[in-house]
Amino acid sequence: MPDTILETIYQRRSVRQYTEQPVAKELITELLKAAMAAPSASNSQPLEFLVITASDVLDKIRTKMRFANYNAPAAIAVLGNPGIANNSSGKYFWQQDGSAAIENLMLAAVGMGLGTVWIGVHPIAPFERTISQILGLPEQVYPLGLVYVGYPAETPPPRTQYNENVIHWEQYEPRKRRKKNRNTKYDQD
Amino acid sequence: MPDTILETIYQRRSVRQYTEQPVAKELITELLKAAMAAPSASNSQPLEFLVITASDVLDKIRTKMRFANYNAPAAIAVLGNPGIANNSSGKYFWQQDGSAAIENLMLAAVGMGLGTVWIGVHPIAPFERTISQILGLPEQVYPLGLVYVGYPAETPPPRTQYNENVIHWEQYEPRKRRKKNRNTKYDQD
Repeated sequence: MPDTILETIYQRRSVRQYTEQPVAKELITELLKAAMAAPSASNSQPLEFLVITASDVLDKIRTKMRFANYNAPAAIAVLGNPGIANNSSGKYFWQQDGSAAIENLMLAAVGMGLGTVWIGVHPIAPFERTISQILGLPEQVYPLGLVYVGYPAETPPPRTQYNENVIHWEQYEPRKRRKKNRNTKYDQD
Repeated sequence: MPDTILETIYQRRSVRQYTEQPVAKELITELLKAAMAAPSASNSQPLEFLVITASDVLDKIRTKMRFANYNAPAAIAVLGNPGIANNSSGKYFWQQDGSAAIENLMLAAVGMGLGTVWIGVHPIAPFERTISQILGLPEQVYPLGLVYVGYPAETPPPRTQYNENVIHWEQYEPRKRRKKNRNTKYDQD
């Protein structure tokens, strides 16, 4: 297990190969406690969580949802529901609240020897339709993303993608060199 | 310092009172390394970071921006810029990428004895205008939020806001009891 928060942060990598070992409900609950310790704008708390371990449902997600064909034994869907929020900030900040909750959950998983990968859903409309249909979500509940959870069968090395070119000190300085240059006809993307 | 990732996660609380001690540039750099270790959808990396320690700029933010009147000696603006992203995922997921980066940054700060508070900017249009103007941001660069950083003059106790009423196991079950009930005429919010 990593010793410091920085090691944990660097060790959190997307895991796309899992063993068959299931994840105990007690550990999932710990992950959700970590998720719900994330900050929430104006403490509006607009999130819900749906835990899936049923293999038929996971199989549907794996086959019908793009970029989700990984063999994890559990998935946690992080859902925005401004209708249950404490105030109107939930409507504006549920995506940000949900993303911070997902990051907490994934870091907590590292500390338990679990692997995770974040499958983006919102705001890609066809992904949202697919997930809402498979999970039977009401219209006012928005699937932000899924987090697959399981025991890793691969261990990507720790890393940061630190890039000093995207840091500005004291004032924003537009850079001459960008990763992409939209002014040339060779820009294909 | 907290011993485990769960303790760090619980100890991360919004700090709204800071000492006058400045934060060394080396520590800010470590925070940015943590931020850039966060996951990025399709590894598009659409984020930029602007570090502010100049007191005249901080004063402008404190007086002109709502919910930002705290005395931290440094602020880190987390910016979305799909134009520098590696691919089109940056356009759709920069908010989520940026929020995960902010959470990493705030947790890393806990490990260094620093306090933070997240000031939401996007998607509140008047907040975005105010911050873009103060920081001189180009039009295609979106201020997601600010993170104030400094040495805490208050230490809120560790906590999670775990709430089992927002957890669904295996299938989504609409609850009868909601925090808010929009079907009564007494609902004022």
